[in-house]
Amino acid sequence: MKKTYKSFFLVPVLTACCALGTFVSNAQTVTDYEARIKEKNIKLIKPVAPIANYVKAVQVGNLVYLSGHGPDKPEGGQIIGKVGSDLTIEQGKEAARLTGISLISTLKGFLGGDLNKVKRVVKLLGMVNCGPEFGQQPMVINGCSDLLVEIFGENGKHARSAVGMGSLPNNIAVEIEMIVELK
Amino acid sequence: MKKTYKSFFLVPVLTACCALGTFVSNAQTVTDYEARIKEKNIKLIKPVAPIANYVKAVQVGNLVYLSGHGPDKPEGGQIIGKVGSDLTIEQGKEAARLTGISLISTLKGFLGGDLNKVKRVVKLLGMVNCGPEFGQQPMVINGCSDLLVEIFGENGKHARSAVGMGSLPNNIAVEIEMIVELK
Amino acid sequence: MKKTYKSFFLVPVLTACCALGTFVSNAQTVTDYEARIKEKNIKLIKPVAPIANYVKAVQVGNLVYLSGHGPDKPEGGQIIGKVGSDLTIEQGKEAARLTGISLISTLKGFLGGDLNKVKRVVKLLGMVNCGPEFGQQPMVINGCSDLLVEIFGENGKHARSAVGMGSLPNNIAVEIEMIVELK
Repeated sequence: MKKTYKSFFLVPVLTACCALGTFVSNAQTVTDYEARIKEKNIKLIKPVAPIANYVKAVQVGNLVYLSGHGPDKPEGGQIIGKVGSDLTIEQGKEAARLTGISLISTLKGFLGGDLNKVKRVVKLLGMVNCGPEFGQQPMVINGCSDLLVEIFGENGKHARSAVGMGSLPNNIAVEIEMIVELK
Repeated sequence: MKKTYKSFFLVPVLTACCALGTFVSNAQTVTDYEARIKEKNIKLIKPVAPIANYVKAVQVGNLVYLSGHGPDKPEGGQIIGKVGSDLTIEQGKEAARLTGISLISTLKGFLGGDLNKVKRVVKLLGMVNCGPEFGQQPMVINGCSDLLVEIFGENGKHARSAVGMGSLPNNIAVEIEMIVELK
Repeated sequence: MKKTYKSFFLVPVLTACCALGTFVSNAQTVTDYEARIKEKNIKLIKPVAPIANYVKAVQVGNLVYLSGHGPDKPEGGQIIGKVGSDLTIEQGKEAARLTGISLISTLKGFLGGDLNKVKRVVKLLGMVNCGPEFGQQPMVINGCSDLLVEIFGENGKHARSAVGMGSLPNNIAVEIEMIVELK
């Protein structure tokens, strides 16, 4: 009698487990960032090694801190100049997108080639090389923020600051550092 | 017999629970940040939604990363201008205080209206919009630091940097980002 | 008989424990940062207390967030001036090294005098006081990065940004904030 009761009890539990299994499997389909990068034809680059006593990324617990990256051009070199004078806002935004691609490329290498390990993007510090009168830093940094949401969807939405620097290394147009949470 | 034993056992347990209840309730009185905001007549604002692909706050574990906020005036608009030329140090300090109020307002919304969930303020990056000769960034950012200690007491004391930016979005006087630890 | 077996069994176990003991002790020798500081004759300073409502370091979990520090001279005072105009790159690099010494000095005090509690350096934000045309921020911040690797070896390698600020407090040449992971 008791055994029969137990069996009846097992049915809904197993059903719930199956349902959960399907749900989890669906969720994984939704977060296949590697597939999305291919779909959207986003071309990652081969990350450049740092030339000093630092590293491009450090993991602590499930957080990855990425060093400040610049607008690396696919053909090599970087986009240089001050946004608002040497470069238009659109060009600055494109520089921020390239900076985002550089960050994602480093992250992919750091994660052994698998961006699906990413849980979410946590934080950006978006630094724009510009003169003292420039005020459109958020529009510029959107180039990177939009890319992150294109790849990671809702999990790509992050806290951020978008600010104007007096100068940046080798006069690059944009520098961005990023914190990412892993699954 | 067994029942009697149980009842006897319950007495000290219930007493201990009551004592614990009083203790917890006392502890909550000390850290009732909501009450302190009312006492000190600090007027929070309705947070403005971000206008791009980012969010005002992201939680990872028990840390909340808040995006860079600006000096939002209670009546709408923001305090603009370079501290040290367009604005005095005192006006800059007041801008930093308004930035702090904006950060706390966002945090309160993020925490479902309950700032008592805060354990401590961890870190500020305080960015002052100013010319190349300005050197009083710490005095300016004190406007925010003092507010945090006014509200959170010892738990409001944080690590910080207070630095001078070449420019800030829409020429706002101050931008501050904050990391907070939750209980 | 059984006892004899046990004794035989104990021999390799004890041997393994001894070997492990030696290994751990060797590992500790390798990461004796306190000894390395003495060996390399790096002179730490007495940390200056902050003069406002903030603290020099905050611990959250096993992370320590250190406030922005400046280039404190051993004899008192700080190195001031803009790198690239008032100061050469070499002088800027020396300022970054002094800033690193100031950070390590604060960290040592925070850790009750024992830098061997450090697991690794996680992240630097290296801010150089310079004019809009300066582009050698990474070379300047290397002064701090090199010091960290000198003390902590591989565990001193960190993620970092090295950027140009329009201005810094009291015109100091360099300001650096740091995140450290504890064992």
